[in-house]
Amino acid sequence: MAKFMDVHHGMQGITADQLIQAHQADLAIEKEEGVHFESAWADPQSGVVYCLSEAPSADAVQRIHERAGHRADEIHPVPLQV
Amino acid sequence: MAKFMDVHHGMQGITADQLIQAHQADLAIEKEEGVHFESAWADPQSGVVYCLSEAPSADAVQRIHERAGHRADEIHPVPLQV
Repeated sequence: MAKFMDVHHGMQGITADQLIQAHQADLAIEKEEGVHFESAWADPQSGVVYCLSEAPSADAVQRIHERAGHRADEIHPVPLQV
Repeated sequence: MAKFMDVHHGMQGITADQLIQAHQADLAIEKEEGVHFESAWADPQSGVVYCLSEAPSADAVQRIHERAGHRADEIHPVPLQV
């Protein structure tokens, strides 16, 4: 398992409810790929959303995000954390 | 106070010790701008570093990062979090 930060662009105007719903959609199926989405942060003005997850691979993260309806634009492993 | 995610590019090869030192350099002076850096995540391969902070403004975040020697390439307010 490793930690990943993924980034979504183009989410201008996202609301708190929409972020919660998107996160819940990930959580509902994440176990099927051995992923856990820990947190997400959104900037409705610039439309960027960051998601922090623990997962076996970036591909596993993307498969969950795709099936939940919101493909990530970037996924970076982040092995270092402070 | 608001929450911010800032992004640094070009940090290829960053080590765990270097990330800790950079974070400590921020923590040492953050109070002077009313900022608190909560966490940072780094991908040594692509050279991207994400920092999560609580601060009065994006400018305050940047002033601390600049004085600590690592100007951020992007700073986004992230008012929404799950």
